[in-house]
Formats: sequence, C-alpha cells, structure tokens
Amino acid sequence: MKSFFYPKSMVVVGASATKMNLGQIILLNNKQCGYQGRLYGVGSQAGEVAGIPVYTQIDDLPEIPEVAIMLTPARTIPALLEDCGRKGIRRVVIESSGFSEYAHGDHSLEQEVLDAAARHGIRFIGPNCVGTVNFDIKMMMPFAFFKAPPSGGRLAMIAQSGGVGGTYLHALPENAIIPGKFVAVGNKLQLDEVDFLEYFLMDEETDVVTLYLEGFSRGRMFHDLAMGSHKPIIVQKSNRSEMSAKIAQSHTTALSAGDDVVNGMFRQAAVIRAEDEGEFLNAIKIIRLPLMKGRRVAVLSRSGGHAVLSADACDKYGFDMAPFPSAFLKKLKTLYHTRVIAHQNPLDLGEIFDYTIFTGILEETLKLDNIDGVLFNHLYASAYEAQMSRTFLAGVAKLVDQYGKPVAVAMLSEPAELLDVARSQPYPIFTSPTQAAAALDMSATYHERKTRRDNRGAPPPISLDEARIAAVRERCRRERRIPWTDEALEICRAAGLTPAPAWTVRRPEEGETLAVRFPVAVKLLSREASHKTDVGGVRLSVRTRRSLRKVLGEMAERFASIADGFLIQEMAGPGVECFVGGRRDPVFGPVVMVGLGGIFIEVFKDTAIRLAPVTKAEAADMVAELKAYPLLRGFRGREAADIAALEEVICRVSTLLAATPEIAELDLNPVIVHPAGKGVSLVDARIFFAQRQLED
Amino acid sequence: MKSFFYPKSMVVVGASATKMNLGQIILLNNKQCGYQGRLYGVGSQAGEVAGIPVYTQIDDLPEIPEVAIMLTPARTIPALLEDCGRKGIRRVVIESSGFSEYAHGDHSLEQEVLDAAARHGIRFIGPNCVGTVNFDIKMMMPFAFFKAPPSGGRLAMIAQSGGVGGTYLHALPENAIIPGKFVAVGNKLQLDEVDFLEYFLMDEETDVVTLYLEGFSRGRMFHDLAMGSHKPIIVQKSNRSEMSAKIAQSHTTALSAGDDVVNGMFRQAAVIRAEDEGEFLNAIKIIRLPLMKGRRVAVLSRSGGHAVLSADACDKYGFDMAPFPSAFLKKLKTLYHTRVIAHQNPLDLGEIFDYTIFTGILEETLKLDNIDGVLFNHLYASAYEAQMSRTFLAGVAKLVDQYGKPVAVAMLSEPAELLDVARSQPYPIFTSPTQAAAALDMSATYHERKTRRDNRGAPPPISLDEARIAAVRERCRRERRIPWTDEALEICRAAGLTPAPAWTVRRPEEGETLAVRFPVAVKLLSREASHKTDVGGVRLSVRTRRSLRKVLGEMAERFASIADGFLIQEMAGPGVECFVGGRRDPVFGPVVMVGLGGIFIEVFKDTAIRLAPVTKAEAADMVAELKAYPLLRGFRGREAADIAALEEVICRVSTLLAATPEIAELDLNPVIVHPAGKGVSLVDARIFFAQRQLED
Repeated sequence: MKSFFYPKSMVVVGASATKMNLGQIILLNNKQCGYQGRLYGVGSQAGEVAGIPVYTQIDDLPEIPEVAIMLTPARTIPALLEDCGRKGIRRVVIESSGFSEYAHGDHSLEQEVLDAAARHGIRFIGPNCVGTVNFDIKMMMPFAFFKAPPSGGRLAMIAQSGGVGGTYLHALPENAIIPGKFVAVGNKLQLDEVDFLEYFLMDEETDVVTLYLEGFSRGRMFHDLAMGSHKPIIVQKSNRSEMSAKIAQSHTTALSAGDDVVNGMFRQAAVIRAEDEGEFLNAIKIIRLPLMKGRRVAVLSRSGGHAVLSADACDKYGFDMAPFPSAFLKKLKTLYHTRVIAHQNPLDLGEIFDYTIFTGILEETLKLDNIDGVLFNHLYASAYEAQMSRTFLAGVAKLVDQYGKPVAVAMLSEPAELLDVARSQPYPIFTSPTQAAAALDMSATYHERKTRRDNRGAPPPISLDEARIAAVRERCRRERRIPWTDEALEICRAAGLTPAPAWTVRRPEEGETLAVRFPVAVKLLSREASHKTDVGGVRLSVRTRRSLRKVLGEMAERFASIADGFLIQEMAGPGVECFVGGRRDPVFGPVVMVGLGGIFIEVFKDTAIRLAPVTKAEAADMVAELKAYPLLRGFRGREAADIAALEEVICRVSTLLAATPEIAELDLNPVIVHPAGKGVSLVDARIFFAQRQLED
Repeated sequence: MKSFFYPKSMVVVGASATKMNLGQIILLNNKQCGYQGRLYGVGSQAGEVAGIPVYTQIDDLPEIPEVAIMLTPARTIPALLEDCGRKGIRRVVIESSGFSEYAHGDHSLEQEVLDAAARHGIRFIGPNCVGTVNFDIKMMMPFAFFKAPPSGGRLAMIAQSGGVGGTYLHALPENAIIPGKFVAVGNKLQLDEVDFLEYFLMDEETDVVTLYLEGFSRGRMFHDLAMGSHKPIIVQKSNRSEMSAKIAQSHTTALSAGDDVVNGMFRQAAVIRAEDEGEFLNAIKIIRLPLMKGRRVAVLSRSGGHAVLSADACDKYGFDMAPFPSAFLKKLKTLYHTRVIAHQNPLDLGEIFDYTIFTGILEETLKLDNIDGVLFNHLYASAYEAQMSRTFLAGVAKLVDQYGKPVAVAMLSEPAELLDVARSQPYPIFTSPTQAAAALDMSATYHERKTRRDNRGAPPPISLDEARIAAVRERCRRERRIPWTDEALEICRAAGLTPAPAWTVRRPEEGETLAVRFPVAVKLLSREASHKTDVGGVRLSVRTRRSLRKVLGEMAERFASIADGFLIQEMAGPGVECFVGGRRDPVFGPVVMVGLGGIFIEVFKDTAIRLAPVTKAEAADMVAELKAYPLLRGFRGREAADIAALEEVICRVSTLLAATPEIAELDLNPVIVHPAGKGVSLVDARIFFAQRQLED
C-alpha cells in the first residue's frame, strides 16, 4: 500500500501535449510542486510533455515504474493492464471513467479488468477516481491543478468522489489545516476504503483519518477497524436517501446502507459523523485540540450579544455552564482592576481592551477544576487589532497545550480578515459562537463515545441451544413457511430468554384441561397470517375457563381454513411496551435494535441500533439513547422500569442473531418491561429465516 | 422616526481628542465616509476634534441639531437630556451603558431618563446601544469603524446587540448584500424594535427587514405588524434557554419568551426564523431572489459527488426532485451533443466544459412547468475558470429575472476565490450544496407560510355566554379556589363546546337516581386536589348502577375531608387522545396549543402553538404541524380521526382565551378525537383564573 503514497517512479498512461490533456496536468502538477520521483508518460505520440519523456508503449519504458496512472478510455484498460503486468508494474490507478457508473455501463468490462489484475497480481485504485496525493513528498495523481502545499500535515483523507474530496483539499489549508495524504477511491472495484483506512490507522505520519463516503464496501470490516482505532475517524457519509441512492449509483456505483444502521455503528465505534460540509471542517479543526473530557464549559466573550448566542448554543448541546468559584472571581478582581459587566459564566469582557488581560483570564479559567473547555468570543476590528489578534491566538495555542483543554475561539471580524487569519497562522478558528459550541460538542461527544467504546467489556457469555433452533428451522424449511409464534418463542427460549407461559393447542378441546392461570390471551397460529392482529387473530384478557372455551370455539370456526393451531398465553402485568429486534443487514451483517413499541416506532422513529453482538454496556447505551428513555427511567412520579432486564433481552437477541446466520430477521414486539426488579414479559415474536435456508 | 435615519445635523456629546475616544470615532466615521449633514461635538474641552467644532455646552451649539448622540457616563444622562430639551433637540441616541444591564444596575436612573424625555417630548434610542446607520447617505452613529459602504442597499436591520449587529454589517457586503439602514436598539427603554419594524415596513427604500433580537418588547404588536407585512421579515431570536436568559438580562435586559411560542408566532405570521448566524445570512441571500413557489427542484451539477450531497439535502428538506420530461431530455441531446452521464434529475454535467451549454441547460430547466427552482453545483478551479464563472453568474442572474424562479448556486472552489466572487459581483452564492438546498427550503417555506397567512380567513364567529363564565368566576373568587372540573366544563359549554354528558352530585345517594348511560367515570371534585388522578380521585369504566353506588360510597369515605362533590360522566368511545389548551403569555398574550395527550406531551414535546384567536385554516395548520399528525390522519390501515372536530375545539378555545382576559390558563386533556364524522369527547378540563381576578 505504501507504493501508492511513496512511489519512487510513476508513469501516466494517456499523456499528450494537447491543451488541457488530463495526463499532462498530472505531470505538470508533480513537476511544478516538486515531486522528486521519476516521471514518465505513455501516449500516442512519443516525445516530451511538460519536459517529461513520453513513450508509445508501456513496454518501452526504461524502468519498471512503481505506479501506473491510467487515463485512457475504459475499453482500453484491460489490454493496458496486461501490458503493465508483463512489464512488472504491480500498482495501478485507473482514473478513466466509463464503467458501471454509467446507466448502461458495461459490467463485463469490469470483470475483464479484475481478471487482468488478478493474473498479474496487480493492486489497483478506481476506476473513475483521481488517485492519491502525498503532500509531504509533493506527489499528486489527480488531474486537477494543485498549488504547492506545505509539508508536515498529519491528516489523511479517503474520498469516494474526487470532486468532493478536491473541494475539501482546497478548503483545508485555508482553515489552518495541512492535509498529509489523500486518496479518491472511485468505483472501488478492487481496493476500497477499508484498505486505506487500515493503512492510515497504521501510518505513523497520520494522526486523524477523514472520509467522504457514498457507500460502504465492507461495512463489518470498517466497523471492526473503527472499534480498535486510537485515531479519530471523521466521516461524512452521503447517499442517505432514496433520492440520492439513484444518483450515487450512477456516480460511483455506491450501494446505499440504511442511515439508521450507519448512525448506530458510528455511535458504537466512536466514529465522528459530520452531517454536512461545514461540520466536516469543524470536526477536523476541533479534533486537533485536546479533547473536551466533560461537558462543563466556560464562555469568555468580548461581546454581550455573542455571549447570549453562546449560552443558547451551549444549552442546545447539553453543556453545563458551570458557575465560577468565588475564589476565581475574587482573583480576577485582584489581578485585573477592570470593570467586568457581571461576574458570571458567561463572562462578558465588554469593557476590557488589554490583550494580556484576555490571556490572563483565559489561563485562570483553564486552571479551574470544574471547567473542561472554553468558548472564547473574540470580536474585533481588523483595522486596529489584526496583529494583536494573531499574537493572542499564539498565546491561546500555548495555553491549550499547557492545560490540555480545548479553547474554541469564535473570531468575529470581517470575512476577509478571518480568511487571512485562518491561512496565516496554525490555530483553528470558528466563525460564530454557534459553530464553536458545535465543535466543542463534537469533541466532548467523541470523548464520551470513545471512553464508552474502550470500556464496553465483552458480550456476556450466552449459550445457545442450537439443536432446538435447528429443529424449528428444519420444520419450517420442510413445510416452506415462516415459524409460528410458538416456534419463534421456542427459539427465544433456546437463547435463554423466558417468554410468558404459554401452551399450544391444535384443536379447541385441548384447551379444556390446561393448567393456565387466567387471564390469558388466545392467538391464532397460521402460515397464512403473519400479522395476526390485522386479521383479528388475537383475543386478549380472556378471564375464565368458560370464556376460553367460547373464544377457542369461535376462532376455530372463523379461521377454519387457515388455522394451524392456537397459542394460549398467560397475560402479562402492566409495563412499558418496547420492542427488541434485529436483522442481517446486507452491508453490516447482524444488527440489533430496541425501541418503544406500538405505533410510536413508526411515528417517532425512536429506535437505537448496534452491530451485534453487544455487551451489557452497549445495550445500556442503546436504551439511554432512546428519546423515550425518560419513560423507562421513571418520570413525573412514574415508577422506573426494569431496564436491566430489557438490556439482557437486547444482549441475548444480539448474540442469537450474531451466532445464527440463518435468521434473517427477528422481532420481539411487544417486550413488556415491568417495574424495576420485576423483569420483562415476552409475549410475541416473529422470525424470518434467510430465503436461502428455506429453499435449501 | 425619519430624523434618526436622515438627520440634517448631529451632535456627539462626549467627544474629545483623546486617542480611541468613542465620540471621536463617530465624528471621524461620518467625515471619512462622506456624510453631508452638519456635525458638532460637545465635550469637556472646547476646540476641534477631527476637524469638527466642539463646544463645552449643548446650549452653546450654533443650531438645534436634529439628533444628539450621548456617550457620557450613565449618571450624567438625565441632566444632559434636560439640556437637550431646553435647546429644542427632540431626537436622542443614548449609547452610554451602565443602566439596568448591570447586575446591580440603577433602575431609578432609568426612570429619571424616561421622565426627562417625557418632559421635553424627546424620543430616544437606547441606552446601551450604537444607534443607527443610513448607508445611503453615509450617516453612521456607531462608535466602531466603518468603511465607506456602497449606496443603494434595500435591506434594513434592527439589532438588539451592537456587537452582533456590527458583525452582520461587516459580513453582508462580503456576501453580495448591500445593507441600507441599521439600528441597534440596546436596552429599549423607550423606542423598541416594534417602532423600527413599523418604520421599515413603511419605508420605501426598504425591501426586507432583518432583526437580531434577544427579547420582544411588545410581542403582540410585533405579531400584528408581521401578519400584515408584504416584506419578508427575517429574525434571529436568541436568548432561548434558561442559561442565556441569565446573561441576556445583564446584557440588554431582555425578557425571555417561551421559545415554543416564538416558533408558533413566527410560523403563523410567516416570519423567517434563522436558527444561527449562517442561516441568517443564507436567508438574506435567498430572499433577494424570486420565491420558490413549490417544492419541485432540479439539480444541475458539475460534480457527481456534489449531486449526491444535493439529493440528500433535497430529501432532508422535503423537496421533490421531479423527473425531467422526455421532451426536455431529447431537446438537451439535440441542442448539446455532449455526453451527460445519466439523463436524470440531478443532472450530472461532469463532462461538459462549455459555459454556454451550462447557461443553455439552465434556461431549458427554468422553462419547465414542473420545476419551481434550481440548485446548481458549480465546481471549478479559479486558476482557469475565474472569469468565466463570473460571467456565468451574470447570466444566471438574467435568467432568474426572466423566469421568476430561484437558482441557488453552490460555488465550489477555493475559499479565497469564493470570497472574491461574493464581494465583486451582486449575485448571491452559497458555499455547499447543503447550504444551497437549505436556502431554497427557506424560500419555499416562506412562500408557503405567507400564502397560508394571507388566505387564513377570519376566526369563525363564536358567541360566548359571558354571564355563565362570570358566574363561575365569581363563585371561585368568593371561595378563593380554582374551578372544579364541572365548572371548568361549564365554561367550555359557554364557549359552545359540548363536554361528555355528566352530572355533579354532592352526596353519594344523589347518584342513585341519575339517568346515566353506563359505563361511567367517577371523578372527585375538590379544591385540595387539582390533579385528581394523582390522588386516586378518578375511577373509570364503572359499568353498573350497583358498582356506581359502591364506588361513590368508597370515594366519599376515602376523601371525606377534601371532597366537595363528585362528577359522574359517561365514558367516551375510543379515539386518539389529544389535548387542547392555552394561556395568557406574558409576552404575546393569549395563545392556544394542541398536541397528543398523555405522557407523550412531555417526552416528545410534540405541540403546536399559535396566538389566539385562530381561524379554521390556522387550526388545521396546527394539527398538520404535529409529528403525531399521521396518527390523526390515518396510518397503516388505521381509521382517520375527526380532525375537523378537533379543529373546531381549537378555534373555540382560542376565541374563549382571546375574549376572556380573566382566564390565565386552560387545559382540555384529554380531548378524545373519535373516527372521522364522529366528533370529539371532552372529558376533563382545568382552568386557572388570573391571580388578580381571584384577589379582587
């Protein structure tokens, strides 16, 4: 993989002296920026392009280039790969487009490319990409113009779109961030984002990995890498909707993953998700500073109005504007005989114009034990305070290093001045208090999730009765149906769960002699009706043996043609109705989810999702993530529910799903969560086996 | 009011030649920028400051200045106002701080200022403000430096904070927006934002009014003005939380208004709310273009990745990416023999490099009947396409005028280039597809709300039985208690509502002979227990006369010491439990609200609020605003609820609240909304009279 970032020599295939020839641009870029490796061109006309020797055949090259960059039409690629292979080139970047990203793209062509590469042991990026950049050695493969960038950047970026990636590469240096390495992966026909993520996580020159992704090639592997990463990973994941899926498919053939699963996975693995372009840059800026290790923030503000905006933003992000200790306020008064409008947090510095006092107060603030980070609103007029402001930022940078806490500076001045500050000195700045607070929130959230991730423990040991599961599966396979409710509950039992006591009867008379405790529910078992309730196949609160006989009789008559039997189940006590379920996600594999039951799932979309299996701590985090969490925790005098029992259900279901690839989908709904200490009642379950299994 | 924006002469009181003297800065600003009126200074030393004559007494001035600007310490202001009054000055701007914005500020000083102004018929802005700017005549009162701005701006801004306002004034010209008039209102001791809003709505030089507000001085009046405004009003309202209320109080003494009420009022009056600094500028930019009169958007994109981001954003904002008609696609092919990746919306222009084609395709797109607006992603390298991009924007501006539809251009290039584009030509640009889509959403939302507002009709005529209301009030006043449930329901009846049939009994025996239809509910009436349910004072589903007797007996015994009687109420049929309520808001007066009943109010905060009274159309909009609306409209095979009946309850409650200032708070909970055509059941009500009324 190192060859793609530190090549000693490169050849651009498709180089010509024609104006705006893309190969020529690549050669020019490298030459002008100062790439020290050897460069060659291959094109239809031998000679020179931009002072670089061009040959008509790969075979004619005077050495074996470490990387070949392809810019010729798609249909020429397989034969050229053969040429590369014969020459001994083992690393190729296919920048040409014209593959499956076109509506009527040629998939057989892609297979030819894969085959040729396999024959010669070639690893390649693309097609339909702009390749890599290593700013440190001024090596750049994209066919767009670049200015000579500074060296020493420790940020790596993986982009699925050269256009979006390029926009960020241009924006970073103007935001006080120096990029280090870049790769645009395009159609990801062979090498994909996981290959590069793995490389960057190991790369000693990289501190933070950023990604712009339209789809996950190997979602589970991405998750596994992220779970073990000590470097922050910042992702802007687009292609979130049906609308964008259509265009993403034609753009880089990205497959859409459920956005709720992506969010759950990111939360679990402490991946920072940037919702849009602004957040992406803000995340990169704040993550350069020490992490915010709590939510207690101090606001120092040179403008009262911006202090109000800061307080709104801090409230929005759940920050605690800790009151300043009186000793601190007294110290400020002693040190600085200056009138401060009100001695509170936020501290309005309105009438102070002495910059050494700003730095002094900031230092005193950073010393406070009850402050985890600072938001500083620096309102100034560039005409008078430009130089002082730059000196101030250098002072802030020093204090941040010294005290290991982040200071998000909102620089409030003319846009041209702000752009100049961002370009001319290395401390990251934000352009409004709201942006600064949002950035601090990203830092605090990352720290919280990383801590939780690294202390999650192991999934609890849960033994599955695989024979029982196999028996049900075998029966369903033979009878070509999904499991009846009693069978689905039987599988739950095999995972150590305890459904509400229930009996299955095939004929109504069998109900007569059961030792049930009333009231009971009666549920139709039928291969025809998977949604029992919709057809009226559920009767609740049957209170006497006489009623039971009557109900069974009625249902047997009504459903004569479709009834396979009836489930008689003891009614559960009161509680909060939740659901626990899961499925095999096509991108991420087994996932488990929890939410409030009933119609609210669909109206409020209040669910939490994780990749399975989960640990006890992860299950607890899932429950706490729900908007409805107050209902479970106890609320306005309501009793707390048995959250521990709910968490155990989540763990067991997640283990069942992770260990049983044959289960495509599983849904326990409702799981009635009784008051604390009284457990849960599982009263209904649906399971779908993978289609493949049914058709075996 | 005109004097504050077109003064023929001004005096700055508190001017000196000391370096950084604020009065001096004001005089310098006006002189350097080219203000043509006459300027004077008053200060402790006679002579000249910045070439302007300075006197030691207001009385010595050679003429009566149209406006006096005060910069002297707070305690000197009352006497100086007397001086102004005697001289004949009738317009004053008090920029000095040191009034109630300080934690221990002097309120008696404020009264002295008000008294002095009243004695002399002086209208004043402030204190603690930076006054007004009229960029057209280069007149500027703030004590911060300004560059000479261009003339002809048609945007007015009202800011409660000089700092925040100043930041925007600096940002606007660098975002292709020329400001026209500005006022910072500070503590709003006399003139407030409503005075200036009224002026700007009438001002023929103003097209759009923008406000940064921390509190509403006269909320109801603001609402009334906004309801009748044909000019867009854009507001950033801060001070939304308890945290910010503390600092806002000390900053400009702003009283916090409930943020949910502010949102409801803005929606009702079609005021555009900007959530943060970025949205504020984006709203200003997009509102300059023709409004988006529907949600059908076309995306044209020079980059596939940005097309994907655009589609995500369009989905987020509920835009319809209407498919292009085949005739249109055919025309494109005929006109431009260029390969376009996929003929769909978004249209990827990836391989076109001819700018006349961009303009041509854009024009064809704007011609389409099924397109209301366009998002154009313009990715380019400034090194080669800077001039072409500027020409392109001029072409876009022309087409936008011609076709009356907005085109939001996301310019994707280097930040320095973008800043230059924004400053050097007048067409507004956005810096990402997400921002551009968000701006189009603001335009479409404004158009929708304005249309709804202007077609809302009048509140339905509802006659109130005032005598019945007065009787209950009188009884409660006398007995110093809140109304019992039966009395609260009686007031509902007086507003034409029909509560569920119910009877009040004082002693259990009275229940024996009532002609009730079972099942019934029995509810305790007690002055001691306003939350009946919490003490167990409600029994539901009493099915027989025998049970009723038993329940009444038990409750009479249990609540012997606090029972004032019992309400026997026929049980309502099934339906969706909602609540309808309202109160007299301290800032906005009577407001009405609706939401889903039960615990979900508090967990999901799903309510809609409007200023009362509301029209039928406004009530319908309230219901449609609820996240739970699908539950009412019918959902997954569920029956639709009787939304019309719910709307009628909202209208009647709103009229009751608006017409009865004595009612401080009213809460109908639950209002059971039965299936369509079957009406609603009102089964419980609570009413609080205004304290003043109780203590009369």
